[in-house]
Order: sequence, then structure tokens, then C-alpha cells
Amino acid sequence: MFTEKAVNDAFDTQLCRKAQLVNNTLQRLLAEAVGIGEDLREVLKYTLEAPGKRVRSALVLWCCELVSGARNSTTGDRVQKGEISNGVSGEVNRNAEIAAAAVEMVHTYSLVHDDLPAMDDDDLRRGLPTCHKVFDEATAILAGDALLTLAFEILAKEIDEPAIAVRLIAQLAEAAGPAGMIAGQMADLKAEKTQGTEELLQSIHTNKTAKMFRCAALMGAICGGANDSEIQSLSEYGLKIGLGFQIADDILDVSASSEQLGKTAGKDVRAAKCTYPAVVGVEKSKRLAKKLADEAVALLEPFGPKADILRKLATALLERTR
Amino acid sequence: MFTEKAVNDAFDTQLCRKAQLVNNTLQRLLAEAVGIGEDLREVLKYTLEAPGKRVRSALVLWCCELVSGARNSTTGDRVQKGEISNGVSGEVNRNAEIAAAAVEMVHTYSLVHDDLPAMDDDDLRRGLPTCHKVFDEATAILAGDALLTLAFEILAKEIDEPAIAVRLIAQLAEAAGPAGMIAGQMADLKAEKTQGTEELLQSIHTNKTAKMFRCAALMGAICGGANDSEIQSLSEYGLKIGLGFQIADDILDVSASSEQLGKTAGKDVRAAKCTYPAVVGVEKSKRLAKKLADEAVALLEPFGPKADILRKLATALLERTR
Repeated sequence: MFTEKAVNDAFDTQLCRKAQLVNNTLQRLLAEAVGIGEDLREVLKYTLEAPGKRVRSALVLWCCELVSGARNSTTGDRVQKGEISNGVSGEVNRNAEIAAAAVEMVHTYSLVHDDLPAMDDDDLRRGLPTCHKVFDEATAILAGDALLTLAFEILAKEIDEPAIAVRLIAQLAEAAGPAGMIAGQMADLKAEKTQGTEELLQSIHTNKTAKMFRCAALMGAICGGANDSEIQSLSEYGLKIGLGFQIADDILDVSASSEQLGKTAGKDVRAAKCTYPAVVGVEKSKRLAKKLADEAVALLEPFGPKADILRKLATALLERTR
Repeated sequence: MFTEKAVNDAFDTQLCRKAQLVNNTLQRLLAEAVGIGEDLREVLKYTLEAPGKRVRSALVLWCCELVSGARNSTTGDRVQKGEISNGVSGEVNRNAEIAAAAVEMVHTYSLVHDDLPAMDDDDLRRGLPTCHKVFDEATAILAGDALLTLAFEILAKEIDEPAIAVRLIAQLAEAAGPAGMIAGQMADLKAEKTQGTEELLQSIHTNKTAKMFRCAALMGAICGGANDSEIQSLSEYGLKIGLGFQIADDILDVSASSEQLGKTAGKDVRAAKCTYPAVVGVEKSKRLAKKLADEAVALLEPFGPKADILRKLATALLERTR
């Protein structure tokens, strides 16, 4: 029988493997991209190679693996791409690999722009000085724009079937766009220094963070050829763990050090951000996050033991220290 | 026989009709987009409704019309969508309409970000105060991000055939991305206050402006079902008129008033920008622009009189006063 530590170690190892995979993909895509000037390439490399947790990418890959082997909902064909989630090695689904890289590019762009002086004005990200600190503000604006554009370019060019590429692009644009992440950012800035309600908070965090998690799960499911009911379950699972992730983030901001986090701690309080600990207190925030993880795990029931890695992910996101 | 004024009037009328069409499409798409908060919607409306010339959108629509009726290069089917370029009314190609709107969104995003204090720091655009002046810097950053994302979303969701959508998205991302417009912006900022060469200038202007013109022509051609040789001709035509357009822009910056331009005049000189008039003088700049227009017109030869509107466009871009 595994001890809890052994289970955690196994999870960490699997997350590491996924991070390594997406890092390699990002590196390859950047190396293969032609026509990028050396100075801009250096900036993109800097932002993409900073040690991100790659949770969203892992979610894409794990959701793809989970449904691989299921029947394709459109054609009815058996899809046999992707390695199985118990970590037994197998062929990696190439579409999911590209989708994971695209999600990571969009996430990285959002951090680069979010850290700008006119936005959250931060100096530290992923344990390194922020993009506009190392280079300059104009470069950081352009680098963010470049990453966002590149994400759509790789989906359009590297996904092997147009019908799948279009679905992935539509999902990513919707999640990252003005009715998703950008809506969350706008509301987040607007809510600073106001007395937030739990309802407002949930809407901000859902838009700012949870929709990108949902999108990652959905994109993985699409690449794996999931059927409608699998897509529905994984989509809701993604939304719930995304919201839980952001609550945990809020808690870490008040409880962890900058060194631990790799980004400036205690910033939310200083900026008078509307956060869960500020509005409902730390204890209730923890309970809410736990409840979301439980609900997320419940959604995985139909998948059986194959979904264990996603069950572990739901709780690991709350237990993390960075 | 038409006088020159009559020909110009006819051209202006046709450009106006295209501008009206794309304005309506943009308005409809924004109205139909769900989940956008009212504050962000107001910002997007402000930027999209500012009176742009809509030259890039018109180029999409005219190129589509020009090749419509030609055989589709993939299927060999006769494509009969799109009105004919002589202005006789007909059904508008719906894909081209969406492509034109996407191009306009990307162009507008680039202006919003370009005008930011950390970039060109401008107060006036399309005759109105710039986005960050009316709202604030954070809002302008997010609004630009939103427009860029939305452009890909509408292509993924509104184009009626996945294979066409993917080609359009790939072209747009490539032209606007780190090997296109963003490369041009980076090089443009870097070249400030340096002694530019004609070669450097050509590379900056090609990336910053001409590739988006080429892309507009290409997207129109793709929507109209152009064959490879038509795509090749229109692609080169677009690149040449785009470069000519940017040279004319440089000349206008030193010769026209802010009121005429709808943006701050004389800015390039004050920012010590690397421009054609600064590097080769106004007279040689005019000759270069004229040469490009002639070469662009020569590329239209295979299309016969149907391409008259594009011939007129090539010269009109140089004769414009704003």
C-alpha cells in the first residue's frame, strides 16, 4: 500500500514529466518559428522558459489520455492515441501536445501583460524578474501580443485536422477573450479598493482563472476524441478545479513568502484586491476550496480508476506551496 | 468619358460602401458577442467605431470579388459568391465579410497598443482621443488583447468551412505575429534615434505594415476560392501596395496637419523615427512609392478590367490626404 508521501511523489513525478514534455514542445516550436528577430526571440525564450508549474498544460494532456481509447463522438471510430494516465509510457497525442503548448503560451502572455506597471505592476514572476523589468515595457507589451498570436498560429498550422483545429481555436479564444479571462482582469482591476461580495468574487475568479482551466480540460478532451458526456464532465471538472486553484492562490498570497511563491507575496492586500481571504476569511476560503475539489472529484466518477491522476490534481492544487 | 474627378469620386464611393459594410459587420459581431461586460463592451465599441479608413478590409472584399467566379483550386468547383468589383450589386461573400472584420480588429488592436505611453505615446487616433486617454492604460492594454483574441474567435466560429477558417487564421496570425507586424514594431522602436538605411527601412515597413496588406489580399483571395496563381499575384500586389501605403504615411507625417490626419502629425520627426523622408528625402520617397504602385498594377494584368478597382486603390493610397 502506498503511503501518502509516495502518492504525492508519484503525482509530482507525473506532473514533472508533463512539464518537461510541454517545455520541450515550446522550445521546439520557438526554434522552428522562422522570421522572428533575435532580440524578440530572446524575450519569448525568457518568458516561456521561466519555470512555470505547467498545471494547465498537464491538464490538457491528462484529459486527452483519459478519454483516449474512447469512441470519437463524430466518426464513431476508436481513438487510440495518447498514453494512459497511469503513466505507462505510450505514444503522446501530438495534437494534445500542441494544444498544451498553446494554452501555456496564452497563460504566459497573460502573466506578462498582468505584471505591467499599468496593470498589477509586479517585479517578480516564476522566481525571476518580470519581462518588463528585464527588458522594457514596450518589449513586454509586444512579447505578450506575440505569444497570444503565436498560440493561434500553432493551432492553425500544427493540428492535423482542420475540424479539430477550429474547435480548439474557438475554445481557447473564448476562454481567453473578452467574455473570459479579459473580463476577469477588467473586473479584478475595477474591484480593487471596493467592498467585494462573494458573488462578485466568484464571477471574477471564474472569468480570470477557471475558464482557462475548463478550456484546458476541454481541449485535451477534444484532442482525445471524447464523446459529449465526457466533454461535459471534464469541462465542469476543469471549471471547479480552476476556481479552487484561484482561491488557493489568494490564500497563498497572504500565507506564503515571495521566495516560496516565485512572485511577490502579500500583493493582494497591499493593492486592496478583492480576494477570498479578504471577503470571507482564510478558514471559509479553505472550506470553499475543499468543497470545489470534492465536487470536481465527484464528476470523475464515470471514468473509474483511470482518472486517479485528475483526482489527485484536484487536491494537489489546494495543498501546493507555490 | 470620365474625368479624373469622376473616377476618384467613384472610387471613394466604392471604398465608402466597403467601409460601411465592415462597420455593420463589426457592430453586429460585437452586439452578438455574449458574456462581455458593459464597461469592456463600451471600450471595444469606442475603438471599433472610430472612423478608420477601412482600407485593409476593403482589400479583403475586393480581392474576394475579383477571383469569385473563378474555379476553386481544391475542389475545381465554380465559386459564384461575392459581388463583382465594378460595383454592380450582388450577394456579399459571408466568409470575406468575417475575414474583413477580423483584419480590422487586428489592425485596431495594433493601433490601441501602439498608442500606449510605453510605445508611441499618442493622444489622437482616427480623429479621436486614443483609447488609454479616454479610459486608462490598463483598459487599453486589455482592450487591445480582447480585439486580437476576438479576431481569431470570429474566424474560428463564423467561417463556414473549417479548412478555410484554418487557412485564414494561419495567415492572419503569421502576418500579425512575431515574424510579421510585431517584428516590425520591435525593429521600429529599436531604430529610433539611429541612422537608418534604406534596407533596414524596407524591412521594418514590410513587417510592420506590408505583411498585413498582403494578408488582407490573401484572405480575400482564399474566401473567393482563388487558384494558386491568383493567390500569388494578389499576395505580391498586397505586399507592394502595403509598402507604398507606409511610405505615403511617412510622407504625410511631415507634410499634413494633425487635423487632416486624425492623428498627431510630425511625430516621426520628434521621436526621431526611422522613416523614408528622413532617410532618402521626400522626393525620392515619392518616387519609390510611385514605383511600387506601378509594380502592383502590373501584377494585376492577368485579371483584366475586373481589377480596375485594385488598380485605382494602388494609386489612391499614395494620393490620400489622411
